Amino acid sequence: MAETIVMKFGGSSVADAQRIKAAAARIADRRKAGDRVVAVLSARGDTTDELLQMAAEVSESPDPREMDMLLSTGERISCALAAMAIRDLGYDAISLTGSQAGIVTDTSHTRARILDVRADRITEALDAGQVVLVAGFQGVSTEKDVTTLGRGGSDTTAVAVAAALGASVCEIYTDVAGVFSADPRIVPDAKKLGTVSFEEMLEMASSGAKVLQLRSVEYARTHGVRIHCRSSFDPGDGTIVVNEEENVEHPLITAVTHSTEEARVTLSGVPDTPGVAGAVFGALADAGVNVDMIIQNEPTEDDKAADMSFTVATEDLRDARAALDGLMEAQGIQSIAWDEQMGKVSVVGAGMRSNPGVAATVFRTLGEQGINIEMISTSPIKISCVVSADRVADAVRALHAAFDLGDDEDGAQTPHGAAR
Amino acid sequence: MAETIVMKFGGSSVADAQRIKAAAARIADRRKAGDRVVAVLSARGDTTDELLQMAAEVSESPDPREMDMLLSTGERISCALAAMAIRDLGYDAISLTGSQAGIVTDTSHTRARILDVRADRITEALDAGQVVLVAGFQGVSTEKDVTTLGRGGSDTTAVAVAAALGASVCEIYTDVAGVFSADPRIVPDAKKLGTVSFEEMLEMASSGAKVLQLRSVEYARTHGVRIHCRSSFDPGDGTIVVNEEENVEHPLITAVTHSTEEARVTLSGVPDTPGVAGAVFGALADAGVNVDMIIQNEPTEDDKAADMSFTVATEDLRDARAALDGLMEAQGIQSIAWDEQMGKVSVVGAGMRSNPGVAATVFRTLGEQGINIEMISTSPIKISCVVSADRVADAVRALHAAFDLGDDEDGAQTPHGAAR
Repeated sequence: MAETIVMKFGGSSVADAQRIKAAAARIADRRKAGDRVVAVLSARGDTTDELLQMAAEVSESPDPREMDMLLSTGERISCALAAMAIRDLGYDAISLTGSQAGIVTDTSHTRARILDVRADRITEALDAGQVVLVAGFQGVSTEKDVTTLGRGGSDTTAVAVAAALGASVCEIYTDVAGVFSADPRIVPDAKKLGTVSFEEMLEMASSGAKVLQLRSVEYARTHGVRIHCRSSFDPGDGTIVVNEEENVEHPLITAVTHSTEEARVTLSGVPDTPGVAGAVFGALADAGVNVDMIIQNEPTEDDKAADMSFTVATEDLRDARAALDGLMEAQGIQSIAWDEQMGKVSVVGAGMRSNPGVAATVFRTLGEQGINIEMISTSPIKISCVVSADRVADAVRALHAAFDLGDDEDGAQTPHGAAR
Repeated sequence: MAETIVMKFGGSSVADAQRIKAAAARIADRRKAGDRVVAVLSARGDTTDELLQMAAEVSESPDPREMDMLLSTGERISCALAAMAIRDLGYDAISLTGSQAGIVTDTSHTRARILDVRADRITEALDAGQVVLVAGFQGVSTEKDVTTLGRGGSDTTAVAVAAALGASVCEIYTDVAGVFSADPRIVPDAKKLGTVSFEEMLEMASSGAKVLQLRSVEYARTHGVRIHCRSSFDPGDGTIVVNEEENVEHPLITAVTHSTEEARVTLSGVPDTPGVAGAVFGALADAGVNVDMIIQNEPTEDDKAADMSFTVATEDLRDARAALDGLMEAQGIQSIAWDEQMGKVSVVGAGMRSNPGVAATVFRTLGEQGINIEMISTSPIKISCVVSADRVADAVRALHAAFDLGDDEDGAQTPHGAAR
């Protein structure tokens, strides 16, 4: 029985005719090898930008339903072009819209959630020997309207289709070779990881690693889909995301991730009365602002008022300020301060669970570099430190070296040698 | 009970943000007046050209099904943008793809025929007070694939939707003010016609008038849809296409039409045996070449061979040559000749039925101008003459004057004075 595989190509992999032909050749090769092949494509980056520009020209606040109708054309264009190119290579191919592919979503336009994948039409086409191109990022709502899935939507489409088909693997093609032990632009000897666990990948995606979207990893873990992150331009293996039990060797630390797009908000003189924190974070949630770390100091004895700090993504800062401005007086909060120049560095590793010494190593290493830790948060397999944005690169390099993650050495910390 | 109207805007009427907003304002005005409004839109001209270019870059012979998937995105973009703009004007609006609008077609990709219009969703939206934007030129096949309707497809969509809804009128908006008694670029005093009959409009569309596509007029006649051709940029009335019995005054001649894109093919020494003509015109039909006029001379007594001439559109000449090249020897045809410099001038008028003197006037008028008539064809309401392409403009002017069709005079030939 032939294997079923899902291949997902992002916007940069279908950016022009030449790249579409290259992706088509790669897809055709897998078909030639005898696999049943579904490819999920994103819109060409230019196409999406042009469509957004058109919408901005005709309307100040485009209707979400119509925005979805507009934007969903981009992936259809990519898929139709790729199907033409694959046919020219001698293989039967068919493009399907999200709706035709059976991607059923809720009715939340521009950020719909997938409810079901009714893959009958994909299966029929595969049974007929066709390569199936599926338009990523989109579906059809229970109201029969075109929807889009929001950020990371095409990755999620690919994983959802792979889950529905019981595919042996979902390959995510991007312009990087896989998941690295740190960003190679900051750490030249960062090594490509052969495998990471879902749990590690989730922590990495939420702490700055951009190779996979958090949402698609969550979907893959829930549905047991094997993900292979690899390069569109390089035939070598990339990084496989697997269940933890498959990851035979548990390194103490798998990777160091970072972000320089963090902002810290500090509220001073917050009344120590029930409901104030609820009002603050409720207002932020209503404004769509995702709060990362939160610290609250002990209220002082005399005035029963506390200080509270939290971090948000820099891009959300404007919305956060708007949400809080209307709240200060009503809640009796004395003052508010902002710091946009913050960053975050995190160490992630499933082996951390059974080794309590990691936090001490992190703090000592950053201390030796003279890097001040402003805030700390932890999970069973992650330690994150908020530091000044201009020291993030130093922190990443120091931690990568301290945990011996580099490609130059072959110690206990590099079991993922398959990536080399 | 509010009236239901269908408004159709072509590519030049939605070519950029400003024109989309202008069309949106025009549509919103009709909604404001209390009508139930459906608008059918074409793709922006640039969009279609860009999509065709993309297809040419990835494939030498793009698959028709995928071509339809690709091209159908253009009208969806127009409709989504127009819906956004109408909402900004304060009216609820919804865009529907051909499939969502219930335009069911056969499976002939790139030139599908409409089989049925299942307008439930349009009706529901109208009942809810929404303006409905329908993507023209496209439908969904009985195999659930996206199809396109080929040339003139958006006009046909509009007429088909109008028929399904029992709309009181189907308004076709273009960049000309209506149907004229001749092309105003050739005849400065050509007058805009207040009404024309379906029969006249069909003859005019098939003999060079470009304002309406033949196919949509046929559909409108069959289903009794009233068409109003009018300007996108001018609020005045245009031309209404009506049943002949509604057209109270029958002018002898309604309009002079012309074409300079005619080619004549002459086959010499065609054996006078059964089946030869069938082979010739069968091969042309298989190649998709539409043959207009045909003349066959009497076979000569001695060799039983005849001469045969026919005309085709210049754009089809290449296909015609290819189809005939393989046929000459097998059918025993002696020689073939081509003339690409031909044109056609036609006079059309429902009043011709009861007045046998028209042909004589046509021939005398052209003779006085020294214009040689190469071929003639007639219908009960039309006389067409093939002439040299470089004399077409002279012929149009002379016939327009001979039948007194101009706007300057007020004789028996100008009952359509309402257009002035």
